Amino acid sequence: MGPDETAGHYLVANVPRARRGQTVAEVLSQLIAHAHDCMDVVCVLDDDERLVGVLTLAALFALERDRRLGDAVQPGFPKVHATTDQERVASLALHHAISAIPVVDAKGKLLGVVPSAALMHILRREHVEDLHRFAGIARETTLAREAIEAPPLRRLRHRLPWLLLGLAGSMLATLIMSRFEGALAIDPAIAFFVPGLVYLADAIGTQTEAVAVRGLSLSHARMRTIIGGEARTGVLIGLVMGGLTFPAVWLVFGSVHLAVAVAVALVVAGGIATTVGLVLPWLLGRFGSDPAYGSGPMSTIIQDLLTLLTYFVVVSLIVG
Amino acid sequence: MGPDETAGHYLVANVPRARRGQTVAEVLSQLIAHAHDCMDVVCVLDDDERLVGVLTLAALFALERDRRLGDAVQPGFPKVHATTDQERVASLALHHAISAIPVVDAKGKLLGVVPSAALMHILRREHVEDLHRFAGIARETTLAREAIEAPPLRRLRHRLPWLLLGLAGSMLATLIMSRFEGALAIDPAIAFFVPGLVYLADAIGTQTEAVAVRGLSLSHARMRTIIGGEARTGVLIGLVMGGLTFPAVWLVFGSVHLAVAVAVALVVAGGIATTVGLVLPWLLGRFGSDPAYGSGPMSTIIQDLLTLLTYFVVVSLIVG
Repeated sequence: MGPDETAGHYLVANVPRARRGQTVAEVLSQLIAHAHDCMDVVCVLDDDERLVGVLTLAALFALERDRRLGDAVQPGFPKVHATTDQERVASLALHHAISAIPVVDAKGKLLGVVPSAALMHILRREHVEDLHRFAGIARETTLAREAIEAPPLRRLRHRLPWLLLGLAGSMLATLIMSRFEGALAIDPAIAFFVPGLVYLADAIGTQTEAVAVRGLSLSHARMRTIIGGEARTGVLIGLVMGGLTFPAVWLVFGSVHLAVAVAVALVVAGGIATTVGLVLPWLLGRFGSDPAYGSGPMSTIIQDLLTLLTYFVVVSLIVG
Repeated sequence: MGPDETAGHYLVANVPRARRGQTVAEVLSQLIAHAHDCMDVVCVLDDDERLVGVLTLAALFALERDRRLGDAVQPGFPKVHATTDQERVASLALHHAISAIPVVDAKGKLLGVVPSAALMHILRREHVEDLHRFAGIARETTLAREAIEAPPLRRLRHRLPWLLLGLAGSMLATLIMSRFEGALAIDPAIAFFVPGLVYLADAIGTQTEAVAVRGLSLSHARMRTIIGGEARTGVLIGLVMGGLTFPAVWLVFGSVHLAVAVAVALVVAGGIATTVGLVLPWLLGRFGSDPAYGSGPMSTIIQDLLTLLTYFVVVSLIVG
C-alpha cells in the first residue's frame, strides 16, 4: 500500500459543514452563501469539530426546514482516517450505498471527504490491479490501457519477474518427472496424462483464486469453515472429473492401473488446488501482503507440483 | 447483457431539472422548494425537455447568481440511453470524472440519471464478474461473497461447465502425447519438460488475457498494432525464458537436441500464448459476446495444445 493509495490522497477539505444544533433552514442558506469543492454530502459536527454524522444533499433538502441536524443524522455512518487504505474506503461506500466517505483525524475531527468521483476511480483501479496481480504483472502497471499499449520491452519488465519464478517451478516439475524415469521407460503412456493433469490443476485452482481475491475481504465466515467448503467443492469437482476420466482411460488404453492413477490424481488435484488457491492468498494477507499480489502465479506452481507428485506416487504404488 | 445490466435498471427519475433560460438564483430557490431522490447533478433542458447539459451541485452553487444556466453548462457532457450497457455507463462516468450520468430517450428527452451509488455498485460488479469469467465461473455468481460461502454442490454447478471443456482439451493433449509415443519410448527425457512447458504457456497467456480483458475496451489503437505489440512482447519473453533454459537443459541432460527443442518451444509458446490470449477475447467481442466471458479457460487450452504440438514437432524434426 503506497501513500497514494490512502484516503488522505483523495481528500477534499472544502466541503459543506454544519453544526448539530443548526436547523435545516439555517444550513440551506449557509450552503447557498458559500462555494464548496464537493457537495456529495453535508458533514454534521459537534462543538469540538468532531463528526457526528453525514447527510446527502437529497436527504437534507427533503427534511422539514425547522428540524435540527443532530436529530436528523443516522447513527452508524461510515468514516475513515487519512491513512486508511483506499480499498477499504471504497468498500465502505459500497456497503453503505453512500457517495462520499468522511475522513477524520485521531480525535474524530473532520478533515474532509473522499468524493464520489475518487471512489469510482479507486474501484476501477482495484479492478485492474486485481486482474494484473492475479496474472503476476507488476504493480507499476495500474492502467489497463497502458498495459496494452506500452512498448514491448517495458511490458517484458512488468511481466518477467513472476514468469521467472514460474520457470524455477517448471524446473522442479522437470526434476519430479526425471525421478520417475524408470516408470516412464517401462510405460511411456504414463506421460500422456501429464499435460492434462497440469492444465486441470491450474484451471481448478484459478477458479478458487478468482473467488478468494474478493471473497476473502468480504466474507465474515470463519476461515476454517471457508477452507472446508472450498476443499469439499474441489473434491466434488475432482470426483466428477475422475469419474468421467476413469472409464475413458480404461477403455482407450486398456489399463485399469493407469485409469485408477489418473482418476485418483484428479480427485486429489481438486482438493489440493482449491485448498492451496485459498490458503495461500489468506496467508499472504495475514503477513501483511495484499491477498491478490502473486497469489495466482505462486498458487499455480504449487498446485501443479503437488498434482504431479500425487500422480507419480499413485502410479508407482499401483504399478510397482 | 441482461435487462438488469442496463442504464434503465438503475434509473432515478426524480432529479433536479432546470431550463436553459433560468438564472442560477431561480434554480436554487426551486431546488429548495422540492425534494428529489438524487441530487448528484442538476439537468439542464431546452423547451422541448431535451437535455442540453448537466451541472454538479458544487458547480451550480459556485456560479454567479444572475448567470443563465444555458451559458454555464459545458458542451460534450456524457449521456446514455436506457438500453445502454451498465459497463459503458460506468466507463463514461470514470472518463468524465462525473458522479451521475443522465439518461435520455431516442429524441434526447431526459428520463433521469444513473446516480453515483449505482455507478459504484456497477463498477464493483464488473470487477467481480471479470475475475469470475476470467477463471471460467458461470455468470450467475456475481457476488464475491456468495461465491465463497455457497454450498459446495452449488459451487460445483457454477464451476463445472468450463472445467468440462478443459477436460475435453486435456483429452486432446493426451492424444497429442500418444501420437509421439515412439519418440517418448526412445528417450523418456522428452516427457520431462512437458509439465513445465504447459505451465509456462498458461502463465504467459494468462498475463495477456488479464491485460486484454480491460485494455481492449479502453484502447483506441488499431487491433493490428495491439496484436503486433503483444506478440513481440511474447517472443521477447520466450527468448529470455528459452535463453535461460537452453544452457541449463544442455548442461544437466547432456543433449543439445533436447535443449534446442525446449528453447524453441518456449519462444514459440511466448508468441502463441500472447497472440491467442489477445485475439480470442477480441473475436468473442466481435461476435457480440462479452470479451471477458470464457476467454481464460478457452485461451489456456488452445495455448497449451499449440505449445505441446510445437515442442513435439521440433523434437521429431531434430531427433528424427
